Amino acid sequence: MKIKCSKSDLLTGVNIVLKAVPSKTTMTILECILIVAENGIIKLIANDMEIGIETRIDGEINENGIIALDAKLFSDIVRKLPEGDISIETGENFTTTIKCMKAKFNLPGKSGEDFVYLPEVKKDESITISQYTLKEVIRQTIFSISDNDSNKLMKGILFEIKDNRLTVVSLDGHRISIRNIELRKNYGSRKLIIPGKSLGEINKILSGEVEKEVNIFYTDKHVLFEFDKTIMVSRLIEGEYFEYNRMFSKNYNTKVIINRKEFIESIERSTLLVKEGDKKPVILGIEDEIMEVRLNSTIGSMNDFINIQKEGASLQIGFNPKFLIEALRVIDDEEIKIYMMNPKEPCFISDDDKKYTYIILPINFNTVR
Amino acid sequence: MKIKCSKSDLLTGVNIVLKAVPSKTTMTILECILIVAENGIIKLIANDMEIGIETRIDGEINENGIIALDAKLFSDIVRKLPEGDISIETGENFTTTIKCMKAKFNLPGKSGEDFVYLPEVKKDESITISQYTLKEVIRQTIFSISDNDSNKLMKGILFEIKDNRLTVVSLDGHRISIRNIELRKNYGSRKLIIPGKSLGEINKILSGEVEKEVNIFYTDKHVLFEFDKTIMVSRLIEGEYFEYNRMFSKNYNTKVIINRKEFIESIERSTLLVKEGDKKPVILGIEDEIMEVRLNSTIGSMNDFINIQKEGASLQIGFNPKFLIEALRVIDDEEIKIYMMNPKEPCFISDDDKKYTYIILPINFNTVR
Repeated sequence: MKIKCSKSDLLTGVNIVLKAVPSKTTMTILECILIVAENGIIKLIANDMEIGIETRIDGEINENGIIALDAKLFSDIVRKLPEGDISIETGENFTTTIKCMKAKFNLPGKSGEDFVYLPEVKKDESITISQYTLKEVIRQTIFSISDNDSNKLMKGILFEIKDNRLTVVSLDGHRISIRNIELRKNYGSRKLIIPGKSLGEINKILSGEVEKEVNIFYTDKHVLFEFDKTIMVSRLIEGEYFEYNRMFSKNYNTKVIINRKEFIESIERSTLLVKEGDKKPVILGIEDEIMEVRLNSTIGSMNDFINIQKEGASLQIGFNPKFLIEALRVIDDEEIKIYMMNPKEPCFISDDDKKYTYIILPINFNTVR
Repeated sequence: MKIKCSKSDLLTGVNIVLKAVPSKTTMTILECILIVAENGIIKLIANDMEIGIETRIDGEINENGIIALDAKLFSDIVRKLPEGDISIETGENFTTTIKCMKAKFNLPGKSGEDFVYLPEVKKDESITISQYTLKEVIRQTIFSISDNDSNKLMKGILFEIKDNRLTVVSLDGHRISIRNIELRKNYGSRKLIIPGKSLGEINKILSGEVEKEVNIFYTDKHVLFEFDKTIMVSRLIEGEYFEYNRMFSKNYNTKVIINRKEFIESIERSTLLVKEGDKKPVILGIEDEIMEVRLNSTIGSMNDFINIQKEGASLQIGFNPKFLIEALRVIDDEEIKIYMMNPKEPCFISDDDKKYTYIILPINFNTVR
């Protein structure tokens, strides 16, 4: 193999596929980035068996070929080379020479014979959304997946396609995050449970521009994201997702309208009194026009007051402060609406159009102050 | 005690004294920040027994008093309070109430009876330099102290005052860093060995402005830095510092003039082939007008060429790449001059005015390529 490309193009490509290089693996070949120069196209490939990424880079092929290079070393070298054209040439025993200006590296390479290529994904069914929307919706739901191995479904995020709507859902047994996105046309019904980890990695690669698109292809086993010069394939989590709709209730006894930023800051303040690993609830004392935010722990006590608009009954209700903060942080509205039934039933944070719904279970607390 | 001050003033003060709060200590009182409100002055104090810091903050005293508050908790709270006036009031059993706008914290405090105040330092002898100069000179020498406990002198930085010159020296047995600073007037001769750790902490506090000054007072046991609203006291390391001047030599066989940035980048590239903990030298092959930078390791090999100006003999010489990089990084000159005798004697990197001299011992290497 003998190729030439610009440092910046190569570095961009390397940084993309690096996201699919496993940090730990028993298959040492997967610690490599595979460079494939064939049919006039230079591709970089990496695969950790859960996700695989393939990206094209612009360049000149002087001799077709394939080489596998240690991903960490290769990426470090590309990063540290001067700006300019980089040439990569393989020799005897897959020894590889990387040249840029007056700098030259010689590295051992591997044939790549035992490299695991990306699975073939049939391109029958797909939806198209903007990179911006995909990036946003991942950020707005990924925090409430479970990192617990006991239920693999909770480690995934549901992408439910129905008519012209994409509903994205994550839940961990204590809370549910739901986002609704309007699609540009109607599609057949389909539920995909995509591993949260895969979505976390693609989120790092997406540029997030509104004008750029992502085509999402899916089969029963896999999902394929196609954008810019890159494709990423992830396996899907198999199984029947939770009937999260059952949690919905149209009734409430207390409705609160509150400034989101003030609310976050007040809860954050209260968490200073919670020791790592402790499960102290923050207690909301909802009265007419004012809400008390308070927390008592062995470290000390805090209370704070926030002006609110209230409809319905007064209420004392306790929450895991982390759950409230994480949901509030991914909402963009300046003012939010919270719907509550009683101190034991979940609260709903939702906008009037139901573009988002965050459901959080309360925590019991001792009402003696 | 009852005081009131602005959040920003209090936070600035807290961040300064935090540098003297020990991360580990058997004296729990030292985990506190002491607040002293007396004689119309509010002071914050912290002390880890090696360094002690005291800073004044503007504010209003409604009732004199002293209170010790857990440093981490208190600083976290101040940081998270809204912008506005903060009032701190102590009650029964040293319970302390911190209020800001509608937010209120109640914390347990301590009397501070067993707090260790800063040692008294006589203000007989002192020099004055700008904050900028002190900050720069610490940065330019602190990297070559030793973190090895076997020789405590090597953990300090020498401040040698003589006539109108301050010479700052650090060394670790493999290299020496020397900086010379011209003082505004003549002073009596004095050698201070200041712990590197103390200088590292003061470096984080100094604003580094050219117009602001630092008064440095010293006795046989202590050094006191006075700047802005802050004083910091550090103990000195006792003993006789190394006669670093003996290392100087006026002779050289090879002199190289090289672009500093190109040289750093080339050495950095070579270190990609060195495994953590390995001691592979980078080898400089000095010829007329060109210098080869090369490194061979089990990972691979690299060579690079840099245009230079050379006087004297050609030379092959090996160095610990880290030592070269660290010295080169703290020099500001675009072009630097390196003086060498032979592959076994130290090289000197120095400017014509001897404002700086960096001496580095070479490493033996196998000349077979």
